[in-house]
Amino acid sequence: MTASADPVAFSDPVYREAVVDLLAAVGYGEVSAFERLAEDAKLAPTLEDKLALGTFASQQLAKAQLICARLAELGTDPFAMMETFRDGFERFHAHTAPSDWWEGLVKAYVGDGLANDFYREIAAFLDPETRELVLTSLEDTGHAGFVVDRVRAGIEADHRLAGRLALWGRRLMGEALTEAQRVAADRDALSALLAGGVDMPGLDLAAIGRMFARLTDRHVERMTGLGLEH
Amino acid sequence: MTASADPVAFSDPVYREAVVDLLAAVGYGEVSAFERLAEDAKLAPTLEDKLALGTFASQQLAKAQLICARLAELGTDPFAMMETFRDGFERFHAHTAPSDWWEGLVKAYVGDGLANDFYREIAAFLDPETRELVLTSLEDTGHAGFVVDRVRAGIEADHRLAGRLALWGRRLMGEALTEAQRVAADRDALSALLAGGVDMPGLDLAAIGRMFARLTDRHVERMTGLGLEH
Repeated sequence: MTASADPVAFSDPVYREAVVDLLAAVGYGEVSAFERLAEDAKLAPTLEDKLALGTFASQQLAKAQLICARLAELGTDPFAMMETFRDGFERFHAHTAPSDWWEGLVKAYVGDGLANDFYREIAAFLDPETRELVLTSLEDTGHAGFVVDRVRAGIEADHRLAGRLALWGRRLMGEALTEAQRVAADRDALSALLAGGVDMPGLDLAAIGRMFARLTDRHVERMTGLGLEH
Repeated sequence: MTASADPVAFSDPVYREAVVDLLAAVGYGEVSAFERLAEDAKLAPTLEDKLALGTFASQQLAKAQLICARLAELGTDPFAMMETFRDGFERFHAHTAPSDWWEGLVKAYVGDGLANDFYREIAAFLDPETRELVLTSLEDTGHAGFVVDRVRAGIEADHRLAGRLALWGRRLMGEALTEAQRVAADRDALSALLAGGVDMPGLDLAAIGRMFARLTDRHVERMTGLGLEH
């Protein structure tokens, strides 16, 4: 059991709860990404793109399995823990249902990019083993390059696509921030992890502000990478 | 290139075409199984079952990738070849859209079981390397056991389910045979493979009849395994 292999961090019940919450959020996010990518695969214009999206979907599910295994090791019911994040993710998806192949591509790229950046920021506050698992779980498996390639070619073929997708990217960012704030407000342990504790360094309001500035910068970089105004 | 590694079989262009057709059919069937299982995963009553179905879906896609690699090795465009089987599969799926979680489970089990039995029968007529690939591609990865477990528990909880699913199983069998006959009529090379040639043993009408009897027997066994009348 890692709780005993890493007694300092996990002896703090608030820390432990924060780690379980974080892993459960990452895990549900991956299950949800699987579902969304499998759904997007249906809209693929070619069988080759369908297989590519399906493969990205499968990789998300494989990552979710690793998270489940770790949640079980920590003595929790992985499915029950992940389930507590269902509403937040489903609300986000209900508000951002893509209307076509292009919106689906951009959503996966922007949404996963943003979520991954956020989890990476949080990972700095974790014990090494959990950090390693979270970072592995966020590794890009070629998906971002695929989206950039397809969207740039799409805009090349039809320039009007750029304006529509730029608006769509802004809307996704807004919806994601709304949900992230809701989650932060609901999860005391996660917020406490970010805020630090007696013997843990944390973030003050200014530092949280800087973190959001970094997340926004990276979002802008991603949109630019797609060839879109932000 | 296997064409030179196995010159005897592949020097016959009709044989080669039959193998390409067969692999393309198996491959498209796996892509299609991925899509259907991912769709069924949405209906899963628990997150645990959703992950299980998602994992079975991913395994189908991984198998399709193997088939694609082999089709490319044989010098064909795997996507173009698989595409030629789209209509048959889509017609079958359009006629057998499951109305709920249970019908989805039974469809995957009965449909894949029947298709796999059929491909196994054909595999007997193949060169060893192709046979090996086809048989590996058909290996059950735990999916059948999962369906049997869930459906038996479902019938235990609600006995009325048994009658409805038994009817559903018969309908699936009928639709599958209709599509299989259509494919056989369209694909001369595949039919020729079954019928044999100058230096290849084939099936006469009586042997084809016996093959269908075996397929039906196994279908009945599967339905009995689910606890259903056939």
